[in-house]
Amino acid sequence: MSTSPSGALRPSGRAPDQLRPVSIQRGFTRHAEGSVLVSFGETRVLCTASVENRVPGFLRGKGEGWVTAEYGMLPRATHTRGDREAAKGKQGGRTLEIQRLIGRSLRACVDRAALGECTITLDCDVLQADGGTRTAAITGAYVALVDAVNGLKKQGMVKRDPILGAVAAVSVGVYRGVPVLDLDYAEDSDCDTDMNLVMNDGGGFIELQGTAEGHAFRRDELDALLALGEKGIGELFAAQRAALAAG
Amino acid sequence: MSTSPSGALRPSGRAPDQLRPVSIQRGFTRHAEGSVLVSFGETRVLCTASVENRVPGFLRGKGEGWVTAEYGMLPRATHTRGDREAAKGKQGGRTLEIQRLIGRSLRACVDRAALGECTITLDCDVLQADGGTRTAAITGAYVALVDAVNGLKKQGMVKRDPILGAVAAVSVGVYRGVPVLDLDYAEDSDCDTDMNLVMNDGGGFIELQGTAEGHAFRRDELDALLALGEKGIGELFAAQRAALAAG
Amino acid sequence: MSTSPSGALRPSGRAPDQLRPVSIQRGFTRHAEGSVLVSFGETRVLCTASVENRVPGFLRGKGEGWVTAEYGMLPRATHTRGDREAAKGKQGGRTLEIQRLIGRSLRACVDRAALGECTITLDCDVLQADGGTRTAAITGAYVALVDAVNGLKKQGMVKRDPILGAVAAVSVGVYRGVPVLDLDYAEDSDCDTDMNLVMNDGGGFIELQGTAEGHAFRRDELDALLALGEKGIGELFAAQRAALAAG
Amino acid sequence: MSTSPSGALRPSGRAPDQLRPVSIQRGFTRHAEGSVLVSFGETRVLCTASVENRVPGFLRGKGEGWVTAEYGMLPRATHTRGDREAAKGKQGGRTLEIQRLIGRSLRACVDRAALGECTITLDCDVLQADGGTRTAAITGAYVALVDAVNGLKKQGMVKRDPILGAVAAVSVGVYRGVPVLDLDYAEDSDCDTDMNLVMNDGGGFIELQGTAEGHAFRRDELDALLALGEKGIGELFAAQRAALAAG
Amino acid sequence: MSTSPSGALRPSGRAPDQLRPVSIQRGFTRHAEGSVLVSFGETRVLCTASVENRVPGFLRGKGEGWVTAEYGMLPRATHTRGDREAAKGKQGGRTLEIQRLIGRSLRACVDRAALGECTITLDCDVLQADGGTRTAAITGAYVALVDAVNGLKKQGMVKRDPILGAVAAVSVGVYRGVPVLDLDYAEDSDCDTDMNLVMNDGGGFIELQGTAEGHAFRRDELDALLALGEKGIGELFAAQRAALAAG
Amino acid sequence: MSTSPSGALRPSGRAPDQLRPVSIQRGFTRHAEGSVLVSFGETRVLCTASVENRVPGFLRGKGEGWVTAEYGMLPRATHTRGDREAAKGKQGGRTLEIQRLIGRSLRACVDRAALGECTITLDCDVLQADGGTRTAAITGAYVALVDAVNGLKKQGMVKRDPILGAVAAVSVGVYRGVPVLDLDYAEDSDCDTDMNLVMNDGGGFIELQGTAEGHAFRRDELDALLALGEKGIGELFAAQRAALAAG
Repeated sequence: MSTSPSGALRPSGRAPDQLRPVSIQRGFTRHAEGSVLVSFGETRVLCTASVENRVPGFLRGKGEGWVTAEYGMLPRATHTRGDREAAKGKQGGRTLEIQRLIGRSLRACVDRAALGECTITLDCDVLQADGGTRTAAITGAYVALVDAVNGLKKQGMVKRDPILGAVAAVSVGVYRGVPVLDLDYAEDSDCDTDMNLVMNDGGGFIELQGTAEGHAFRRDELDALLALGEKGIGELFAAQRAALAAG
Repeated sequence: MSTSPSGALRPSGRAPDQLRPVSIQRGFTRHAEGSVLVSFGETRVLCTASVENRVPGFLRGKGEGWVTAEYGMLPRATHTRGDREAAKGKQGGRTLEIQRLIGRSLRACVDRAALGECTITLDCDVLQADGGTRTAAITGAYVALVDAVNGLKKQGMVKRDPILGAVAAVSVGVYRGVPVLDLDYAEDSDCDTDMNLVMNDGGGFIELQGTAEGHAFRRDELDALLALGEKGIGELFAAQRAALAAG
Repeated sequence: MSTSPSGALRPSGRAPDQLRPVSIQRGFTRHAEGSVLVSFGETRVLCTASVENRVPGFLRGKGEGWVTAEYGMLPRATHTRGDREAAKGKQGGRTLEIQRLIGRSLRACVDRAALGECTITLDCDVLQADGGTRTAAITGAYVALVDAVNGLKKQGMVKRDPILGAVAAVSVGVYRGVPVLDLDYAEDSDCDTDMNLVMNDGGGFIELQGTAEGHAFRRDELDALLALGEKGIGELFAAQRAALAAG
Repeated sequence: MSTSPSGALRPSGRAPDQLRPVSIQRGFTRHAEGSVLVSFGETRVLCTASVENRVPGFLRGKGEGWVTAEYGMLPRATHTRGDREAAKGKQGGRTLEIQRLIGRSLRACVDRAALGECTITLDCDVLQADGGTRTAAITGAYVALVDAVNGLKKQGMVKRDPILGAVAAVSVGVYRGVPVLDLDYAEDSDCDTDMNLVMNDGGGFIELQGTAEGHAFRRDELDALLALGEKGIGELFAAQRAALAAG
Repeated sequence: MSTSPSGALRPSGRAPDQLRPVSIQRGFTRHAEGSVLVSFGETRVLCTASVENRVPGFLRGKGEGWVTAEYGMLPRATHTRGDREAAKGKQGGRTLEIQRLIGRSLRACVDRAALGECTITLDCDVLQADGGTRTAAITGAYVALVDAVNGLKKQGMVKRDPILGAVAAVSVGVYRGVPVLDLDYAEDSDCDTDMNLVMNDGGGFIELQGTAEGHAFRRDELDALLALGEKGIGELFAAQRAALAAG
Repeated sequence: MSTSPSGALRPSGRAPDQLRPVSIQRGFTRHAEGSVLVSFGETRVLCTASVENRVPGFLRGKGEGWVTAEYGMLPRATHTRGDREAAKGKQGGRTLEIQRLIGRSLRACVDRAALGECTITLDCDVLQADGGTRTAAITGAYVALVDAVNGLKKQGMVKRDPILGAVAAVSVGVYRGVPVLDLDYAEDSDCDTDMNLVMNDGGGFIELQGTAEGHAFRRDELDALLALGEKGIGELFAAQRAALAAG
């Protein structure tokens, strides 16, 4: 399945199991404790990690930390301009759904007792969208989170490592009948079913969100998608490691 | 796995693959074109289907209909009183996420061209919550939708049947290391991983949303959960058919 | 006036001074300290009483309790679907007006010093509307309040009874020139003047809200309406007592 | 009851059936079609009537007009500064309740078919509050409305007079056991029961809103209050006529 | 430039360097610690100063006071009715911009350490608008502020005078090619460039906000405008002193 | 004044009349009709120009176009994380003030009749803030606007050039008694007075907004600031021209 003899299937000419070029650029902005520009092809998301010495009310006095996320899309990150959510006065359902997903995914890789009473907020802002913004955001936010935690370690603010393992995410879907990895916008908008997978580097599934907009997917398609996702996420872990080693 | 010799595992004493008692009561209120009170054990959701002769702007003039959903929880549906969203001035992220899920799930079983230019809104309001409100809502909303569509058929408003097949939903999860079906609140709040499954009666997956709050789930656990879900949803289809036949 | 020989006057065939059938069902849901489904004919309101160990800021440290109410209408409680207030992002003027009325009415029957520093919130949610939702809500909320207070008494949380007496409410109006009791929707929407009365069981008026949408009402009509209301509220007190005795 | 020998009862020294000095100043501001500064003692409300050539959606094409009201209180109209509703982002329940009352009261004196397809908005803004702002607002808004309608008549915009009769309003209450007319703030804040009356000059009741915050009122008290209110409103009609004649 | 031979230039017949008649009426309402009705011709703004014994969070415990402002326009202060911001649920950009300007301007004349831990809020509400509402507001608010501070001095609440000097404001603009002072609405709406100047009585500039809507202004025009503004503000200082002396 | 012998004055070591390094990168993102990343030193703002075939209601049918702007700051563009305005549910006063300024500034260089019935929206989003974000935004947005207009010209959508001339902006201020050009954050937060200047390339002033937070500025200081600003803006025009020529 790794070769795409004709290039005819996917608009990009990619093989079904081929990721878009991935780039993870650390230190993209200077004020945040972690700041990563992640690109999955033409999708570019700025992920910053901010450390604050406070926790939400429900955690106060428990000695545990908190990890949360917010997501936004610049109005012209997309083909046609979208309304600015700040001007509309509320975040849409899609935005809330994505930022809840990012928050849960990153919390799954953190030992919050080891973190101690502080909050790390991961702001994921899409500068340019071409499909897969949430999976790029999770993959990049992990690297920003590690940078922020390493800063806390250097300052002696944490005693043992709060990072339990790596987290990365990718989308998979059935495009014109064929299971493919890492959908871009052209595929996503013309796709029967798609699924976002979040995994840890122990091979466990953290989140798995599949949606069949047209044709409901069969069990054998599901198995093929899971296999594609596991392959892609493996490559994303390698990209994360390379970026963190480069520092 | 169908027997629970000791009853010790699940707080309710259910076998791991055992649904809670399901009840689907049609005609619960009188004004709506479809009105169903669905119970999954102590979880009770009122699902109404309202037909209106208009479509959202993006569909105007296309000859297609629309199916959408809204979800709410009465303030004291839960153990402790929650804030009323109308008084807070916004719907929370969880609410938006659930109503988007219900809407997508029901659209998946409707031929919108056959429906014609009208909108069916499924209002799912939780009167009492004990876990699984979104899966009960989808399962009940399907029956309310069928009642509303049957009304349109009787009035000659639709020419061919817009219902493509049945849709039902159930939750599954790993509770204390054991895959179980249809989590109640006691299980849900003490559960490592859980997944909501929406399927059609052709055996296809429409939505699949798994979340590992503690322990990431392994592939073999995922397979066990999918099997449990398929079994439970089969029983829910039977309950839907029985309710619709009773009418 | 008690007989309706022809049944021609009122759409329902009721005599001018006849209430709709009243039903007060306690324990309708299980989590709330008081939970009552009240029906005035086809109008059905779920009234829950929730006890919380806190008081609003202006009462803190004064040793007094608080009683407040919130009101909502399910979107399809009515003939045509109304917008969900949570989705619109604010409660309408009618909703605020009604919940303020319910709160004042119930506070009038409570000795807040005897209650001690806790808040009882009465949530009145209309499942089905056919006129008179606010009067049904007050009448039902009183029963839910008594159940919640009895719970506090059993737990030894209150020393003397905070309930000063019963409270009930009914609407009256001039329909096609004739004063009638307990307007249903068909009457209410075609009525020149109507009035909501809230009374205590000592025969005192707690609230009295009359509105002449068409023809302003004369003093003799007002007197007739007050007499009808007193009669109807007497019957509602009996229904409340019967429901509370049944427990 | 017209004399107050000792002046001891009411903080102001007024007799129980004595209004505060009433002043109705037309043409207070220059842009509005009607602009009245009304004073009931120290309570001062600016009432403007604005005519616009449009009607709300539900009246479009019916050939009828609309009359509506908005109410506001300047932040420091009161003894202690209140939050500005524009800054808080919503109008409170009290504000909405009052502006709905003003709108209904003024609509009751207008023949909307004679008005034709235009909207008259009555903005009632309290510059200084000392009790009775809503009754002063209704009494003043009537005069502003007449000025606006007279303008339409001069321009030939209406063919027959849309004003059906005069409307005025006053509060009454039981203060330290004695029924009194036109409560000021000192009385209002220390009052067991109070009632707002809106009447037309044919002697009919348009609105009647009584509230017993402490002691529920008996039927004989209610009768005494209604008599006081009729007397006071009679004097307010005289003040309105004098102001309109002065023009 | 002080004479206007023909009166032809300005709609009002004023000379280019002539202010409108200025009136500053203290004690306009009774509850506020300072209450001033300021008129610049037909522009009338009610400015109240309210003293409260609290400071914003960022100043707590620092022994300093705070001065802030809020601005509003009654809906029919203008030629055509504007929407009520409280009803729309938010203050517009223009409103926020103006109230921020008023707040900064008044803070510039207060020694906040001498004021001590209290907040003075200047509410500037436009009763009638004819251009220059923000400059009238600043000029009037200064007098209300002085009255409030004098009250604190009389009560011994401040030890040394917190007022550092007077503040006043005026608009200037290029109208049909000629620099003019204190634009009214007819000029403002037909003006190429205008500027608002806020100065202290030491001759220093506190705020200077120039906008060229049509023709960008040249340096020599800017110089002429500054000279006109300085002249006008000198006259406003005299009016403020006269008003404060009258007390 | 062009040399800084000691480098002691400004934290950055710049001469008083020295801009920070300016960079204007076109085509930074791919979907917008114009997309510019502008940097004034460490301040980085992404400016996109979006063309839409519609105009606001007040311009419909007039044959004129519209130019408007929106401004935002990513939560962690600053030293400490700021709340996300979309999550708070409203844009702050500072944001609205800045986006109104950007919109007015850019409209000043456009012949809206030549543009025809379309809207160009300039979204200015601050990726990293170090003082002067609004002046950088205006300077960069001009380049994005020109790119968008050139696109319209290439498509034959405009007949004559709607760009009337260039617009750029810079801040100036008195820092520790010395007038300086282009304040960075360290200077801005410790500055007595500062001013933002917007000019066109004909030497005219479009906007001029000076604020004295501490010491009010004298006329001679104002003259010095204007001279510095004119010098700096001249250099910014050169940078804009170079960027546009590079294309």
